[in-house]
Amino acid sequence: MAIKYLTQRAAQAIDVELMSPTGGGFSFEQLVELAGLSVAQAITKEYSKETHPRVAVFSGPGNNGLDGLVAARHLSHFGYQPKVYYPKRPDKPTNQGLMRQCTELDIPFVDSPESGLHDTDLVVDAIFGFSFSGEVRQPFVSAIEAFKNTTIPIVSVDIPSAWDVEQGNVRGEGFQPSMLVSLTAPKQGAKDFKGKHHYLGGRFISRKMEEKWGLNLPRFPGTDQCVNLNA
Amino acid sequence: MAIKYLTQRAAQAIDVELMSPTGGGFSFEQLVELAGLSVAQAITKEYSKETHPRVAVFSGPGNNGLDGLVAARHLSHFGYQPKVYYPKRPDKPTNQGLMRQCTELDIPFVDSPESGLHDTDLVVDAIFGFSFSGEVRQPFVSAIEAFKNTTIPIVSVDIPSAWDVEQGNVRGEGFQPSMLVSLTAPKQGAKDFKGKHHYLGGRFISRKMEEKWGLNLPRFPGTDQCVNLNA
Repeated sequence: MAIKYLTQRAAQAIDVELMSPTGGGFSFEQLVELAGLSVAQAITKEYSKETHPRVAVFSGPGNNGLDGLVAARHLSHFGYQPKVYYPKRPDKPTNQGLMRQCTELDIPFVDSPESGLHDTDLVVDAIFGFSFSGEVRQPFVSAIEAFKNTTIPIVSVDIPSAWDVEQGNVRGEGFQPSMLVSLTAPKQGAKDFKGKHHYLGGRFISRKMEEKWGLNLPRFPGTDQCVNLNA
Repeated sequence: MAIKYLTQRAAQAIDVELMSPTGGGFSFEQLVELAGLSVAQAITKEYSKETHPRVAVFSGPGNNGLDGLVAARHLSHFGYQPKVYYPKRPDKPTNQGLMRQCTELDIPFVDSPESGLHDTDLVVDAIFGFSFSGEVRQPFVSAIEAFKNTTIPIVSVDIPSAWDVEQGNVRGEGFQPSMLVSLTAPKQGAKDFKGKHHYLGGRFISRKMEEKWGLNLPRFPGTDQCVNLNA
């Protein structure tokens, strides 16, 4: 059985169920931590700190952006040199905390997409996730334009930003990342992904939930928090 | 330079600093998640799911017990068959959530130390941590007596339970675990540990904090959240 590609609605329902006190029982911060860790770990499998030490994380205003901040922290612990572009920062304790964790590690916050892409070996696209719909606004229009024009490999978190979560790369107008790390389960739009490396991250789904939603998840190897979907 | 062994007071101060909005910036739940994950991962390095599939986690009423619940969940995802003895359950959202996460994975909660040790290949001692002082009360007196009398290997989280955090195994009256997973940095009492395997878990200390406290931490390999201190 092939792994299931989720509708936006199913992805949202699974997220709610994971955090329900009578469902998965997770806190939001636990899921963000495990998701971000899985992204960082997946990156190490394909882009080593020797060949791609300088990583620019582009974080959007929502939860996808928080996954990016967590990934930046773990990448720093793993020996990479991350920097973060995080132009829209909701005034919430989780954001503040995750930013502080980066600052404590001397991870710089840069103030434009250009600074993000300058002297950089790898980009993490954590701008929009599975909740995205509607129109992209500045400064993310510029960031996504820059993604279209760069030759630096891009790792997208959950779904390439500004793609339609279900319809994917509509009219081929989006950028193609080199790597995609789907979280929990791939979204339908991920079928348009043509890059080299497709991973699944987020090792926190119970067998019950997997069966209920018919996810057909692959086995994660060892203690890894991610699994290669191309393998 | 050798790794530093912390006083109880230093361990508490580092914990406060890790969670300070002007220090590490971490939330309590993030640290519990990463600590518990590191314990589960360290266990896989020494006790495989093939040789030691049935793991009994003994969780105390405080934070050490929560690390145990997180470890039980990750061990389940890693393919072990954990069960949990958790007799004192403070009525707090974190406890409730972590218990629910175990229940969602069909991890059973047992109601006595005897059931914990019955048909079990490995014990995780997450009863008391670095905040412990004073006297042990029931039902933990019985649990710790059972630890003294069993031949099942025991993995202690941070400090063997009922040991003095600084004075260690006073008068040799405590049990000796086979493995110790120190968190953040070893506590002074850990010098009395005579078991085979000593690991350090918790990969979240900044270089700044490491230098400030003179911790001399070893390097964590790859993406591991734990490191073998015997190696």
